[in-house]
Amino acid sequence: MDTQTYIARRKALRSTVKGGAILLLGQQETSRNYLANPYPFRQDSHFLYYVGTDLPDLAALILPDGEEILFGAPEDPDDLVWHGPHPVLGDHAGAAGMAQHRDFSGLAEQLVSLAASSVDIHYLPPYRPDRTVRLAELLGRSLDEVTASPSAELVRAIVAQRSIKSDAEVAQIEDALAVSYDMYQAAYAVVGPGRRESEVAGAMQGVALAKDRAQSFLPIVSVRGEVLHNNTYGNVMQAGDLLLVDSGTESPHYYASDITRTLPVSGTFEPRQRGVYQAVLDSQLAAIAAAKPGVTNKALHLIAARTMASGLKEMGIMKGDVDAAVAAGAHALFYVHGLGHMMGVDVHDMEDLGDAVGYPEGEPRSEQFGLAFLRLAKPLEAGFVITVEPGIYFVPALIERWKAESTHADFINYEEAAKFIGFGGVRIEDDILITPTGARILGKPIPKTIQEVETALGH
Amino acid sequence: MDTQTYIARRKALRSTVKGGAILLLGQQETSRNYLANPYPFRQDSHFLYYVGTDLPDLAALILPDGEEILFGAPEDPDDLVWHGPHPVLGDHAGAAGMAQHRDFSGLAEQLVSLAASSVDIHYLPPYRPDRTVRLAELLGRSLDEVTASPSAELVRAIVAQRSIKSDAEVAQIEDALAVSYDMYQAAYAVVGPGRRESEVAGAMQGVALAKDRAQSFLPIVSVRGEVLHNNTYGNVMQAGDLLLVDSGTESPHYYASDITRTLPVSGTFEPRQRGVYQAVLDSQLAAIAAAKPGVTNKALHLIAARTMASGLKEMGIMKGDVDAAVAAGAHALFYVHGLGHMMGVDVHDMEDLGDAVGYPEGEPRSEQFGLAFLRLAKPLEAGFVITVEPGIYFVPALIERWKAESTHADFINYEEAAKFIGFGGVRIEDDILITPTGARILGKPIPKTIQEVETALGH
Repeated sequence: MDTQTYIARRKALRSTVKGGAILLLGQQETSRNYLANPYPFRQDSHFLYYVGTDLPDLAALILPDGEEILFGAPEDPDDLVWHGPHPVLGDHAGAAGMAQHRDFSGLAEQLVSLAASSVDIHYLPPYRPDRTVRLAELLGRSLDEVTASPSAELVRAIVAQRSIKSDAEVAQIEDALAVSYDMYQAAYAVVGPGRRESEVAGAMQGVALAKDRAQSFLPIVSVRGEVLHNNTYGNVMQAGDLLLVDSGTESPHYYASDITRTLPVSGTFEPRQRGVYQAVLDSQLAAIAAAKPGVTNKALHLIAARTMASGLKEMGIMKGDVDAAVAAGAHALFYVHGLGHMMGVDVHDMEDLGDAVGYPEGEPRSEQFGLAFLRLAKPLEAGFVITVEPGIYFVPALIERWKAESTHADFINYEEAAKFIGFGGVRIEDDILITPTGARILGKPIPKTIQEVETALGH
Repeated sequence: MDTQTYIARRKALRSTVKGGAILLLGQQETSRNYLANPYPFRQDSHFLYYVGTDLPDLAALILPDGEEILFGAPEDPDDLVWHGPHPVLGDHAGAAGMAQHRDFSGLAEQLVSLAASSVDIHYLPPYRPDRTVRLAELLGRSLDEVTASPSAELVRAIVAQRSIKSDAEVAQIEDALAVSYDMYQAAYAVVGPGRRESEVAGAMQGVALAKDRAQSFLPIVSVRGEVLHNNTYGNVMQAGDLLLVDSGTESPHYYASDITRTLPVSGTFEPRQRGVYQAVLDSQLAAIAAAKPGVTNKALHLIAARTMASGLKEMGIMKGDVDAAVAAGAHALFYVHGLGHMMGVDVHDMEDLGDAVGYPEGEPRSEQFGLAFLRLAKPLEAGFVITVEPGIYFVPALIERWKAESTHADFINYEEAAKFIGFGGVRIEDDILITPTGARILGKPIPKTIQEVETALGH
């Protein structure tokens, strides 16, 4: 992104937020097991979007009159010794198109003085304890006060702005997707009976790291695809297993990719795996085909759900009227999560800003199991980039619980469902751009149909 | 480690710390760019050492009478749905040999009630803001109060205990070193002109990740070896460059390895590279040869310094009396850091506990440049595992500064030193165990002599 992009983004933000000062807090280093042993640094995403500088311990302040100041550590002569030649704070301010830069140690005083002049300080909800502590220090408030008073107006303005991706942003996401493509190519060579999940994870991450790319989230690489929260890689793959791989990486400007594929460990799908896989694929394609501006993502979610329920009915796992089953939420025994989420500088874009990202004001989330987990429900707009990632899972604990309570027994054939305990799960995920007339799957196609996947695995 | 090991470790700790309750706080998840996007979880090292459980949001409380309680989240029925079958809190307490387990939400009340009964609560200095915040919540104190009052007695007891490694701990470190060996083997295949530093980093990390091993710290993989604080991997290697690789991984029980090698990008060292490399290697071998119980690590540091100064004198870069030069600190223009550090569950073992780890009580760090950065100065004991990692660097900013100030001009030939600007740096690091009579280099030998390195690189 060039300097003009950051200037324009901040100008648009400043013009939307009426009055007050806007404080954008950069990220601090995060220690692992002691202070000087940090995790790989990741800048705060809002800071990346509006300033772009990828360094710890910065803050940007935008005053009511539009004056902009980048706060950071002043240069220490020893920095040159330990860090070699590098751009200094003024250079970073210049690259971001900010006229002024100042010593971070003066920020608290400036904020307190603004507050004393009855200028509101707009800041975002802190999503890490170190951010809460830093805001408390800067604003001279308690931790509880900081947590209680983020700016809803700033949240709304940023959600509106960051939701619509420019061509340059889409290009960044496609850049990350090109690396994802290579990561899957590396995976195909390692998937096979007798090998550990971690070998696939290592091969994929090695590809990204060789290109100096971070993961956009902790990947899932598991033969236990039905375990939704699963970031362990210790299982040994067996013939007959399905390996679910959900991973993503970041572009040079830290935009995310997020791709899921489900691969048969033996190289070919078994008959009932084909059935479940095809039902998920049909759902994903149906949702993508229906995606366009004005359609809600909730509607897409339900299209996917109905397609899936039809497939499950054909397999004898569900029964009765498909529309009624989906309206009741019966499909959610198998399709336990939402269709997808917004994507951008965050893989769940702006998730730190809460449901303002995915839900229209005044529309709370559904309380129905399954639908309650849908992160994005509102009408789609041209420029949104979202994931489409339906899945079918056979979760033993859930099947047993619903069966014991006869939940939706009109729509579920529990005898048949029980036979799928141990099957695992299937999810298929792509990243799509909402265009003025429909949607476009981003990135070079990664093998997805049954035949494509089997061919990729050498069969 | 088996249950008896953890029981014995806690019993020893309890018997050393007289009176009071001992609170060991586990690690919390660490968010990256929003709450639900964490970094890979790493348990607190003290918690690993005394309890072993590798889960977030735990705490262990050891009461004055030896009663032990593991605090954590009680099981939620939904955990089975989202996380699959897994051990519950009682299982973890059992594995750690702790008789009791309780809901974490009751810990604060118990601590406040202990404090009301005038029972001291011993806790360690918090090294992350989230730990400070959690301790403040648990103890009902302010952040400043928490920071001000960690237990010096607990720190001393833990330093004494964790400094001496058992055979099982040494085996863990050697297990990590076996992976380091494989990582270097992978590196040799990727080092070469025209390739990016990140390709080497990715190849090495891919090996570790395939074995499900985390890095013990952010690796250095750089043709700018003279930049000491350097975790970027963007340079393209050129023939004639030296690539400095400092990396480590973790064993199944999270013990660290830490190995540095310096590799000629072309596959063979140039004549002056051979000179500098051999001076560093001679220093490392001299320090290792002198290592045994009773000798201070500061003495080893100075042995390495004198060996290096001799080598630099032979090359015409230093001059005058070697002992006098080292006593004055002139060598530190090139050998800018300390010889090494304690190793264990942390790569800089117990660095969160401060200089109590490396310095005898009442002996402050030297203020001399170079020696001031020595992390471990005290007498070695059998059972210590330490790194030995001397290096020679040509840091342009430092050479120019000292030259301008004529610093140690009696001992440094600045005209000759200036010719090495652009040379980079050489460091060679192994991990050694102090035995009753000397020292043993741990792990399968990783190519280190000039000939071994060139052979490994295919020459």
